[in-house]
Amino acid sequence: MQSSNLEPQIIARGREFFSSISGESVSLFNKARWTGKVMDWCMKNEGFKVQLFRFVDVLPSLTTGKLLTSHIREYFGGEGDDVPAVLKWGAKSAGIAGMLGASVINATIRYQIQDMAKQFIVGENTKTAVKNLAKLRKDGFAFVVDVLGEATVNDEEAERYVATYLELLDELQDERTKWTDLGGGNNGLDWGHAPRVNVAVKPTGAYPLPEPQNFEGAVEGIKARLARVYEKVIAAEGFLCIDMESYKYKDITLEVYRRLRSDPKFRHYPHLAIVLQAYLRDTDKDLDDLLKWARENQLPISIRLVKGAYWDYETVLAKQRGWEIPVWTQKPETDAAFERQTCKILENHDICHFACASHNIRSIAVVMEAARALNVPEERYEFQVLYGMAEPVRKGLQNVARRIRLYCPYGELVPGMAYLVRRLLENTANESFLRQSFAEEHEITQLLEDPRKTLERTRKEEEPAPAHQPAEQIGPISPIRPIRLIEPFRNEPAADFTRKEVRDAFPRAIAEVRKQTGRTYPLFIGGKDVATPETLPSVNPANPDEVIGRICQAGKQEVGDAIAAARKAFPAWRDTPSAQRAEYLLKAAAILRRRIYELSAWQILEVGKQWDQAYADVAEAIDFLEYYAREMIRRAEPRRCGSSPGEVNLYFYEPKGIAGVIAPWNFPLAISCGMAGAAIVTGNPVVFKPSGFSSVIGYHLVEAFREAGLPAGVFNYIPGRGGVIGDFLVDHPDISLIAFTGSVETGCRIIERAAKVHPGQAGVKKIISEMGGKNAIIIDDDADLDEAVPLVLYSAFGFQGQKCSACSRLIVLDSVYDRFIERLIKTASGMKIGPAEDPRYSMGPVADRTAQKSILEYIEIGKKEGKLLYSSPVPDKGFYVPLTIIGGIKPDHRIAQEEVFGPVLAVMRAKDFDQAIEWANSTRFALTGGVFSRSPRNLERARREFRVGNLYLNRNCTGALVDRQPFGGSGMSGVGTKAGGPDYLPHFMDPRVVTENTMRRGFTPVREDDERIV
Amino acid sequence: MQSSNLEPQIIARGREFFSSISGESVSLFNKARWTGKVMDWCMKNEGFKVQLFRFVDVLPSLTTGKLLTSHIREYFGGEGDDVPAVLKWGAKSAGIAGMLGASVINATIRYQIQDMAKQFIVGENTKTAVKNLAKLRKDGFAFVVDVLGEATVNDEEAERYVATYLELLDELQDERTKWTDLGGGNNGLDWGHAPRVNVAVKPTGAYPLPEPQNFEGAVEGIKARLARVYEKVIAAEGFLCIDMESYKYKDITLEVYRRLRSDPKFRHYPHLAIVLQAYLRDTDKDLDDLLKWARENQLPISIRLVKGAYWDYETVLAKQRGWEIPVWTQKPETDAAFERQTCKILENHDICHFACASHNIRSIAVVMEAARALNVPEERYEFQVLYGMAEPVRKGLQNVARRIRLYCPYGELVPGMAYLVRRLLENTANESFLRQSFAEEHEITQLLEDPRKTLERTRKEEEPAPAHQPAEQIGPISPIRPIRLIEPFRNEPAADFTRKEVRDAFPRAIAEVRKQTGRTYPLFIGGKDVATPETLPSVNPANPDEVIGRICQAGKQEVGDAIAAARKAFPAWRDTPSAQRAEYLLKAAAILRRRIYELSAWQILEVGKQWDQAYADVAEAIDFLEYYAREMIRRAEPRRCGSSPGEVNLYFYEPKGIAGVIAPWNFPLAISCGMAGAAIVTGNPVVFKPSGFSSVIGYHLVEAFREAGLPAGVFNYIPGRGGVIGDFLVDHPDISLIAFTGSVETGCRIIERAAKVHPGQAGVKKIISEMGGKNAIIIDDDADLDEAVPLVLYSAFGFQGQKCSACSRLIVLDSVYDRFIERLIKTASGMKIGPAEDPRYSMGPVADRTAQKSILEYIEIGKKEGKLLYSSPVPDKGFYVPLTIIGGIKPDHRIAQEEVFGPVLAVMRAKDFDQAIEWANSTRFALTGGVFSRSPRNLERARREFRVGNLYLNRNCTGALVDRQPFGGSGMSGVGTKAGGPDYLPHFMDPRVVTENTMRRGFTPVREDDERIV
Repeated sequence: MQSSNLEPQIIARGREFFSSISGESVSLFNKARWTGKVMDWCMKNEGFKVQLFRFVDVLPSLTTGKLLTSHIREYFGGEGDDVPAVLKWGAKSAGIAGMLGASVINATIRYQIQDMAKQFIVGENTKTAVKNLAKLRKDGFAFVVDVLGEATVNDEEAERYVATYLELLDELQDERTKWTDLGGGNNGLDWGHAPRVNVAVKPTGAYPLPEPQNFEGAVEGIKARLARVYEKVIAAEGFLCIDMESYKYKDITLEVYRRLRSDPKFRHYPHLAIVLQAYLRDTDKDLDDLLKWARENQLPISIRLVKGAYWDYETVLAKQRGWEIPVWTQKPETDAAFERQTCKILENHDICHFACASHNIRSIAVVMEAARALNVPEERYEFQVLYGMAEPVRKGLQNVARRIRLYCPYGELVPGMAYLVRRLLENTANESFLRQSFAEEHEITQLLEDPRKTLERTRKEEEPAPAHQPAEQIGPISPIRPIRLIEPFRNEPAADFTRKEVRDAFPRAIAEVRKQTGRTYPLFIGGKDVATPETLPSVNPANPDEVIGRICQAGKQEVGDAIAAARKAFPAWRDTPSAQRAEYLLKAAAILRRRIYELSAWQILEVGKQWDQAYADVAEAIDFLEYYAREMIRRAEPRRCGSSPGEVNLYFYEPKGIAGVIAPWNFPLAISCGMAGAAIVTGNPVVFKPSGFSSVIGYHLVEAFREAGLPAGVFNYIPGRGGVIGDFLVDHPDISLIAFTGSVETGCRIIERAAKVHPGQAGVKKIISEMGGKNAIIIDDDADLDEAVPLVLYSAFGFQGQKCSACSRLIVLDSVYDRFIERLIKTASGMKIGPAEDPRYSMGPVADRTAQKSILEYIEIGKKEGKLLYSSPVPDKGFYVPLTIIGGIKPDHRIAQEEVFGPVLAVMRAKDFDQAIEWANSTRFALTGGVFSRSPRNLERARREFRVGNLYLNRNCTGALVDRQPFGGSGMSGVGTKAGGPDYLPHFMDPRVVTENTMRRGFTPVREDDERIV
Repeated sequence: MQSSNLEPQIIARGREFFSSISGESVSLFNKARWTGKVMDWCMKNEGFKVQLFRFVDVLPSLTTGKLLTSHIREYFGGEGDDVPAVLKWGAKSAGIAGMLGASVINATIRYQIQDMAKQFIVGENTKTAVKNLAKLRKDGFAFVVDVLGEATVNDEEAERYVATYLELLDELQDERTKWTDLGGGNNGLDWGHAPRVNVAVKPTGAYPLPEPQNFEGAVEGIKARLARVYEKVIAAEGFLCIDMESYKYKDITLEVYRRLRSDPKFRHYPHLAIVLQAYLRDTDKDLDDLLKWARENQLPISIRLVKGAYWDYETVLAKQRGWEIPVWTQKPETDAAFERQTCKILENHDICHFACASHNIRSIAVVMEAARALNVPEERYEFQVLYGMAEPVRKGLQNVARRIRLYCPYGELVPGMAYLVRRLLENTANESFLRQSFAEEHEITQLLEDPRKTLERTRKEEEPAPAHQPAEQIGPISPIRPIRLIEPFRNEPAADFTRKEVRDAFPRAIAEVRKQTGRTYPLFIGGKDVATPETLPSVNPANPDEVIGRICQAGKQEVGDAIAAARKAFPAWRDTPSAQRAEYLLKAAAILRRRIYELSAWQILEVGKQWDQAYADVAEAIDFLEYYAREMIRRAEPRRCGSSPGEVNLYFYEPKGIAGVIAPWNFPLAISCGMAGAAIVTGNPVVFKPSGFSSVIGYHLVEAFREAGLPAGVFNYIPGRGGVIGDFLVDHPDISLIAFTGSVETGCRIIERAAKVHPGQAGVKKIISEMGGKNAIIIDDDADLDEAVPLVLYSAFGFQGQKCSACSRLIVLDSVYDRFIERLIKTASGMKIGPAEDPRYSMGPVADRTAQKSILEYIEIGKKEGKLLYSSPVPDKGFYVPLTIIGGIKPDHRIAQEEVFGPVLAVMRAKDFDQAIEWANSTRFALTGGVFSRSPRNLERARREFRVGNLYLNRNCTGALVDRQPFGGSGMSGVGTKAGGPDYLPHFMDPRVVTENTMRRGFTPVREDDERIV
């Protein structure tokens, strides 16, 4: 039979039912009471509902006034107007008022919520429960009683659970004869056929943590304890129903039922029921199997059919685990299943007794009409309603069908609250029949609509009714937002020398700076200048007699002090919001921008950089600060991993600890700012050791960060001799990471030493190390020589070749070799050498006398290995070396393998592009490279096979810009960290993941970014 | 005066002009010729235009037939129908036909393009040029001649440039008297007033690489050479115009003009002109300054006004450098400026001679009408048109204004091609007046519209006319796309034991596997099984008599062989497209999925894992393969950095080299698959050393990868004793990265040893090291104990506590301590211990006898430090240790600090949440942690302050899932790499950046992702 055959009768019956209860209301929603007001608020405000239900959940654990007070504040004391006055008042007072006031409020709230819970619970202990059950009978209702308990997690608790039932049954057995008769007459059975004592029991209460994996163990374990209860039920001539819980235990429970029902000891006694949940997709089959089993075994059974109460839990869990969702995802599907299964059971009423447990008037009408159509005797079916719920339905049922049983839980507040949450959820669900019927005035026609039609209709409307309404995001789960929006990153423009004001600014700045040379520079530790007796001069390499500054020298003591200062600053700095740390960098960038000509002038004098390149270095320093500030803001946002409902995984970063920053002199402000800025913005206080050749420029970082207001200890400046303090800094157990840029020898030494874990060290040290290069440019046979000639010279001799990115090898294809080299040398010979402060000179001095000597030695080596093609004249004074081009070089020559770090270009003649690529890749370095070619194929080959960190096609191989050309190499050139690129900051941090299970008691707030259930 | 006052006259004049040339056409677009067809195609197909213009650019360098052939193929031989038949035919034949055929085609193409170039060039050498100039005069045109040269990059080239001019002037001086008279009469001046000899010169030709930075040097350098030319011009009674080039040289050029004009030697001679470009925003001011200067110095000047030819170049460069764009970005703005400046010059005709150099009929009409209105004498202005361009305009001008001068470049093909590209660009630009007038039949009204009105109109239309039309992306620049689309990542579902078929599958699989125990397992090197004489047994820890397999043992020889095999496989594997590498992982995942029950059974027997956990390990192995495959595909896509036009920076990753993977036994398949899979998919061949306890499971990787068809040498399996081969593997110079998971002692040893760079080593070794944990769960005073009890036990004793993530410290707040611990112990005492193959047991044996001994020792230590709360009974046989709970522990106890790696839980009683957090953080490890709390504030504190890699709120602290809970810690727990997370794969790779300058001869193909110019 199908309920659809009875459609007109069902509708008529339903309408009659509705009119019989017209004007009745659900007491929970009575707005005259506190509970009704709160319910009303919950339905209007999802965020509040989440907090309230969670608060109800935790309430039983709040065993002291202090705990209660703090939780009220935490749950409801947030910002905004979302909290209803009654709670807000309570919460605020809890924070502000004295304990007396607060405790009064606490007591009020606790009382109100307990009062709310009592609506659904028939008593807190066996004695009260039994007393109240008798009262219910006076009102004409039968009951089924159920014991609420803590979850059973061990055998003792299982025993206690069983004991409670045994005690309950003892009491009921004693009392039953005293109860109001429900029209059963003298046989002591309600309505003439139903046992008066009726209890429901939960399998997981009787056995701790049953696992389907251990199926047999679980079934037998549960059965053993339930048997003891069942024996007592039989003794009391009662009725036992085995409740169905979550899907996990469904098959176990069905098996327990079958074994108990068919146990030789119990076969004779028919009053054992099992619950089926219409919302499970399995239930049609389970019902068929059960009916078949009953007939085969000639054992009458009883089924209570419910819709199912764990929908959120089942869907969320299945999603989380990648299992098929075991429940119907559309409410009308469940309603239709309920009707289908109702008919099936009623058709089998000879072998199966039926309890309809639904508050849905359409479902009830279906039962009535189907029973009528099938001529089901009254004693073969009854109606059940939850205690405290849907009073009008209960009343209506009483009017039309005598046989109503109230499902009555009793027990202590703790489990009571879990039960309350479930009931509240049910009452406030968007699709709740309860709410639709009474709290809202929906059309009766729609409420009585055949669920199959509803389904069809909503499917046609092509907007699948969302299973969940997305909740507003609630406080702690939502990610941190940046505190202010900033403009997208832009590179600081290069100096535009077409503008006269730019050209004029340089000599003026140099003159200004020159007035300030010769000062003594202190260390900077823990926010304070620290002078040392020993100083070293930093001189103008174009004129070593000119002292740019005298630098106080740190010893181990001072390095230790700086590390201690950093350590002291660490916790607060780490906990400073990322966006705020980024602000300091932006401030420092603005300061550098303001001082850009002055800072360029210092570089021109202290390291001998040409105007444009000095300016570019300051601009790059600004870029690093601006870029890393933005990168940190981008990375600060915790990223959600996965989108499983009921689980929020947030992925975010934390600083590693104290950073040792060991900087080179050739990009004295840019690389220092880059490494230190990255460390600082990621939350790592810095101990900064500048190069001895550029310590005055290094002090400009102190000035910029101090002016930006960086907290004391976050940036410490300790110039000193590498031989004295280098190893000490690297070995120190309080250093967590080292950012180094410099020679491959020093880099490898640092990597090796830092790998050793010293006593007291918190973790493995992280090393970010950018080292040397031996970079080649290839000139293909179709290269645009007009462009190649000047750009090769710029790559090789800009800042005297003192860049790790500089071109030091030139590989020219045979067919263009002669023409290209001729033009190259002629052009080189026009380049003038002299002090960088005079813009007539395109090349200046090298770093110091040692560098000068080393480069000159390499030139001698090169001359022996190959043939000198060009050597420029140089001024007498100052650390000059000639611009040198050496031809006839082979890939294995020292001059083609070792980093010279000076204006020396080794030229090789390759027979074809294959050989050129092979030679280009033939050193242990892999930093930059260049190709001039107009062959699409060769350019593509170079992209793939010229394996360097930064490859440049048809342009110079130096001058990488932050963001646009993230810089760094592999091999012995570096460890694969690319400065100024999107992957750089994570090297300074450790990722963390915080996973929160957001499901409590099956209640799962939904986030907008959750995967959809359906 | 404003041209707008003359609007009606201008329109009338323009209409007249148009009608006078009605029916004329531009020869370049004549479709009867090859050139016209190609032009037509260019205008229809941006991609082809890019390739053609680039080809034209490179053509002069293609000095051999072979070069020409290969370039034709590379530029035009691509897929698709985009190439016009004529070129395709040429290109294909070039590839297919023999050299004879190809060379014919090559010659054809070269001829055609040279022919195209000749259209715009008056001759290839001085002699032909002079001859052709005479011809032009016969047709009634005056000329200005210009020498095309290679870019001047050195003094010799500058000298050659000057010498060419001197030679040209000599020739012209000789010839001038022989020329057709242009109506000047006997004074030898054209039209009665203009010198017949008229040359234009480029400042950058006369001086190599002038730099604004060295302004004075550049001005004087240029002036000195131009003076020599000018002297000769004066001697020939000629006219010299200094051309204006790119904006960079504008101020230098103006200054050169002023100095030359006012030089005492030249003041007397008026015929020196300068070019101004109307498209420069500076020009209004420059013009004012120049006029003012002329008046102040009483020096008549001459200005040729052009629109400007470097628009692309100027805009792209400014964008790249972050400078303000120096040109007007809307074409009508330039037109309006031209009209404005025209009027200004004509108003000053007494001191300034004017040459109007535009092909725009509206602009020409403005000049005519303004001159008429201002009564400008004819000798004070003339018209100039480019040779070979806009023939109808030239004709129209000849009709109405006698005085037309053709701008005639001459010179060799090389610079000719650059000039040709510029002319072609001009002709095919969307906004080209040339194209609009003649190639397309635009409305004359619109062509004659006042540019101010056009501007207003287009601005009103609110669709700013795009300065560029986005080009189709052309081959090499476009990023690589994944070869197939795959489904988003989903975790492999856990075993669902509610399903009978799942429960039944386990005993069946165990029985099947048991039949196969005792086999001997070879090594796997270079795609081949390798047996060794020595084997070691791997046994069932629940029954050490049962040998699961006998494992061949690798020595140093075999490890060396494996590394050599990996090295051999590396180049091809590195160059295998990422998406293809990912496919192998997906295949391997499918194989594991097919074998999931069998592989679970092996784990149950070889390492004693419970059913669910064994299955979960295989599922996690599948997850790692599936996830890293997708991550690699995601990372394979090169990412563009920055969006500056004219520059494409692609950021992508390359493998580091050969990976040593050293795996643990506790997640024997999952972690091995994770580390090896990540290495493999990123392109690093693997040398895999499994743990001795799980070498049979380790061999399953061999099986899976072999079945997946992974190339030989990419995965090599070398089980062996750590003491024998560990250091050898770690130290080996051919190993580039090591992925290790295991104890902190081994991890630190590896880190320290691997940091040393050995001779022959290519780069610094990268270490990915996941080490131990000493993980705490905090039980807050409001925790949900129903959940906390079972989940703490699962976290602590799942797989016998042999997880680095396991809970080994339990910190319970004082107020719930007694109640919680009581429930915990009672629950623990219900947990049964026995072989993992029997699902009744929730705990099994530990790894081996050594582990057993060590754990038992720790239990003794714990008993002394605290108080034994619970110790379970254990079976006699097998490596069992009791489930142990020890209370009364303080944070500094050894049992609270050292990793036990067994079922031992140390319990601490904390007075409050502060203390709990402090204790939780008090070890050197920082891997996982858990908090059970329902206090929003305490949960938030834990998020911030409980500093572990993976923190779990209100759930167990084990069982991290790939993608959802990226796993790994910091401190001594790991180096901050999170397996199964978004940052993992980059650790196996080095990032590279390829920067391409896409601008050639100012021509810059536009990409859709370019930043907009305007």
